[in-house]
Amino acid sequence: MGFWKSWFSDSDAASTTGAIQMEEDVVPVNGDRANRNGRIFFSTDRDIDLYELEELCDAVGWSRRPLRKVKKAIQHSFLVTSMWEVRGNRRRLIGFARATSDHAFNATIWDVVVHPEFQGKGLGKALMKFTIKKLRSEDISNITLFADPHVLDFYRGLGFISDPEGIKGMFWYPN
Amino acid sequence: MGFWKSWFSDSDAASTTGAIQMEEDVVPVNGDRANRNGRIFFSTDRDIDLYELEELCDAVGWSRRPLRKVKKAIQHSFLVTSMWEVRGNRRRLIGFARATSDHAFNATIWDVVVHPEFQGKGLGKALMKFTIKKLRSEDISNITLFADPHVLDFYRGLGFISDPEGIKGMFWYPN
Repeated sequence: MGFWKSWFSDSDAASTTGAIQMEEDVVPVNGDRANRNGRIFFSTDRDIDLYELEELCDAVGWSRRPLRKVKKAIQHSFLVTSMWEVRGNRRRLIGFARATSDHAFNATIWDVVVHPEFQGKGLGKALMKFTIKKLRSEDISNITLFADPHVLDFYRGLGFISDPEGIKGMFWYPN
Repeated sequence: MGFWKSWFSDSDAASTTGAIQMEEDVVPVNGDRANRNGRIFFSTDRDIDLYELEELCDAVGWSRRPLRKVKKAIQHSFLVTSMWEVRGNRRRLIGFARATSDHAFNATIWDVVVHPEFQGKGLGKALMKFTIKKLRSEDISNITLFADPHVLDFYRGLGFISDPEGIKGMFWYPN
């Protein structure tokens, strides 16, 4: 798979992106709008501005969550992936996903979000592929998630199967 | 809820159970066989003999997994619960479950097992209730799992709901 890293290790780039370390991946972008907008980078750095993340989640209409708990969740996630649009010396958080894991067998992906302005360009797919690749590189064999009905086809397109062999996702509610 | 702890803190009990710290919970046992067999204790201590755990998993016909990875998974699980039969100065591992988590919002329960000799007595239910109680005490609001078809009713009886609001459990397989 064509893939290259483009770590912002030189002082110039570092000054433009702060502490976040980024990788550039091959992004299958539909149309040229994202190209016009800027270059797309991915990161596994978990030092994300929580207000910027909240803004992203607001943009897709998610309920707000206490930042103290979001911080804790990020800290204790096995993998945190973020997607950035970089234009000149500015970067903008446009996507996010994270995974819990036992570091050995299983990982579960949560909180997958792409900013509405950047949806429909294949960027959600690119974010997920980046996330899956990272989990696979850590030798995680069982990658799972819980998908809302309207995104089932999106995940199917990435190789996810719902209810394989009749296995059901279940949620606990107090009786 | 009637619940008491019975930590093995005195030297006598400690010598019988080794390093494992245990709690006694109210166990709704069907019939008197388990009572005849011994008292049932629960523990969240993750210092479990991996060979004893392997023996338990063998007993229910699970595929063997590398102990190195099992050790890593236990180490990196948020919660590890085990169930023990204690008779005199001997203890036997008869049940196990563990959960991954982000320590803030979500937990996913994996590897729920009860030794066949102790099934059908309500002990699986007791193990799960103990596990749920521990997760709730850590302020985890979203408790999830992936259930095989033949145990769906077991989990439903504990308050788990499959596919709530059409949310589907999905597993990734390489395309």
